[in-house]
Amino acid sequence: MFRVSFDEVGKQLASVLRSLGFSEERARLSARLFAETTCDGVYSHGVNRFPRFVAMVRNGSVDPDAEPRIVARFGAMERCDGRRGPGNLNAHAAMARAVELSGEHGIGCVALANTNHWMRGGTYGWQAADSGVIGICWTNTMPNVPPWGGLDAAIGNNPVVLAVPRANGHVVLDMAMSQFSYGALESYRRRGEMLPVEGGFDAEGKVTRDPAAIEASQRLLPIGFWKGSGLAVMLDLIASMTSMGNATHQIANDPLRETGLSQMFVAIDPRTLGDADKLELIADEVVASLHRSRPAEDSKGVRYPGENTLRLREENRRLGLAIDEVIWAEIGEMTK
Amino acid sequence: MFRVSFDEVGKQLASVLRSLGFSEERARLSARLFAETTCDGVYSHGVNRFPRFVAMVRNGSVDPDAEPRIVARFGAMERCDGRRGPGNLNAHAAMARAVELSGEHGIGCVALANTNHWMRGGTYGWQAADSGVIGICWTNTMPNVPPWGGLDAAIGNNPVVLAVPRANGHVVLDMAMSQFSYGALESYRRRGEMLPVEGGFDAEGKVTRDPAAIEASQRLLPIGFWKGSGLAVMLDLIASMTSMGNATHQIANDPLRETGLSQMFVAIDPRTLGDADKLELIADEVVASLHRSRPAEDSKGVRYPGENTLRLREENRRLGLAIDEVIWAEIGEMTK
Repeated sequence: MFRVSFDEVGKQLASVLRSLGFSEERARLSARLFAETTCDGVYSHGVNRFPRFVAMVRNGSVDPDAEPRIVARFGAMERCDGRRGPGNLNAHAAMARAVELSGEHGIGCVALANTNHWMRGGTYGWQAADSGVIGICWTNTMPNVPPWGGLDAAIGNNPVVLAVPRANGHVVLDMAMSQFSYGALESYRRRGEMLPVEGGFDAEGKVTRDPAAIEASQRLLPIGFWKGSGLAVMLDLIASMTSMGNATHQIANDPLRETGLSQMFVAIDPRTLGDADKLELIADEVVASLHRSRPAEDSKGVRYPGENTLRLREENRRLGLAIDEVIWAEIGEMTK
Repeated sequence: MFRVSFDEVGKQLASVLRSLGFSEERARLSARLFAETTCDGVYSHGVNRFPRFVAMVRNGSVDPDAEPRIVARFGAMERCDGRRGPGNLNAHAAMARAVELSGEHGIGCVALANTNHWMRGGTYGWQAADSGVIGICWTNTMPNVPPWGGLDAAIGNNPVVLAVPRANGHVVLDMAMSQFSYGALESYRRRGEMLPVEGGFDAEGKVTRDPAAIEASQRLLPIGFWKGSGLAVMLDLIASMTSMGNATHQIANDPLRETGLSQMFVAIDPRTLGDADKLELIADEVVASLHRSRPAEDSKGVRYPGENTLRLREENRRLGLAIDEVIWAEIGEMTK
């Protein structure tokens, strides 16, 4: 690991994207979203993910030029065809439009079909909150988690994002429906550690904390066992029906060909119904109520969702982004 | 346990409610919602819950006459004051209005403050789906779960409901943010059984499957550990900010005085953007993909959310509702 400034990372990634056919403006925005993801400490979906994204542009899964097109609209709701454009640009455009709709109707919804992996989902939650509104969004994915009671991966880990604006720090939750990602399992295994809680099944079908056993069985646990499994199904149904796009069972189970995803973007502007100062107070008091908690054993206390992100963002902006040398060298080769 | 016909249960409960000052129409609807809950197999929040509901009318927590009043509206969104009316009637009215709004705007949202426990949340999901639309709703509750990293109950178990309409059986999920309810812990303890998965902490702060140990520590586990804790916080923030109502930390931690709740009701009408036959097909294919799953060890296979409800509903309609004799006798005394 070494440190590279935020601006330098953005420039380098944008340069690669231009070389792949992205327009200047789109290259800059996509590069910024990758850099911000690493800056916020979500290393799995920032710069470390960039080479896979580039591979998907090169293999034709991602079309650099494609912009989302509105195919149906009714009141506060729009349905868009993502035309297999870059997932982060599509999602950013969809949330921006949902925010606009929420200003006109109190609540706005954009359903996006035929798009690509949005990288870090939290990006679009922070985006909504930066615009002063509540954001709720989710995506389906390729089948990567067995449904409760089933042996094989048939549901997605379908990340969901909820975000609330707050002057003293937005509250943002970005969570997938599996207890751990495959990336997290790999990290624990490499460090020779067991998972802190059960994360999947072993070869005998018993729940286990052993990351290698779960990687071997390919049987991740959904959060809350039967509950997260059910929630993943609902998120998939709502996204695919509202966007008229693919459901998880129709998406290629191949990380380099995982395309044609369905996503939902909902924005709620509570200022259209209530006083902004009162809204701030409500949010601040909820945060304060969490901070008043007596810490549990071995805990440093209760944090609100997104609190740690703000700390990491400040630290990484100041010190530079923590970048894997091998990946940085690989990215450097891309423009040569 | 003995069996009482659905109609007989409805009549008896309505008679009690009339004696408490409910109008004829409101007594009938509230009674029906209680009976339907037991009929659907959610025994904890149906007839078995009725005596506690009556106690809350008698102690003044629930005002039988109060109907929700719209206090602000903007486009597709409305904010209502529930005026501490009966929770199931308030929630039913709010979802009905959200459904209307979704017909006018594609998506509709009603934020309801100052209401009471909605009993079974799934009721309003089935209601939306019966109206042909997608329903999403949630409620906050009194503090009954410790946040992740905290020792004392400071967040609610905030049930969330998602529902998708389908001619061959709606898909409806109704889940709280705790892995188990206190009612479930009590049932396991009385049967002398351990929980099937970890459900909370024991006196030493270790996760445990022992229901009695969790009842003693009062430390329920959120689903997905840190994830469900974060999700409960977000649901509370969004409901309290949009409704301008109480957040969990402001709600009395007393089952008989748990009032002034905040709730969200969102309805999405995908037919405003897409072809109804295609929507049916998308839903049916997702269900079929789940049913194709190979069953895991000791499993009868994968069910979609709500599938078991339909089976129980049919059985209980045919055989009569399974009613606890002691509770039925208690309800019989109420009109004397």
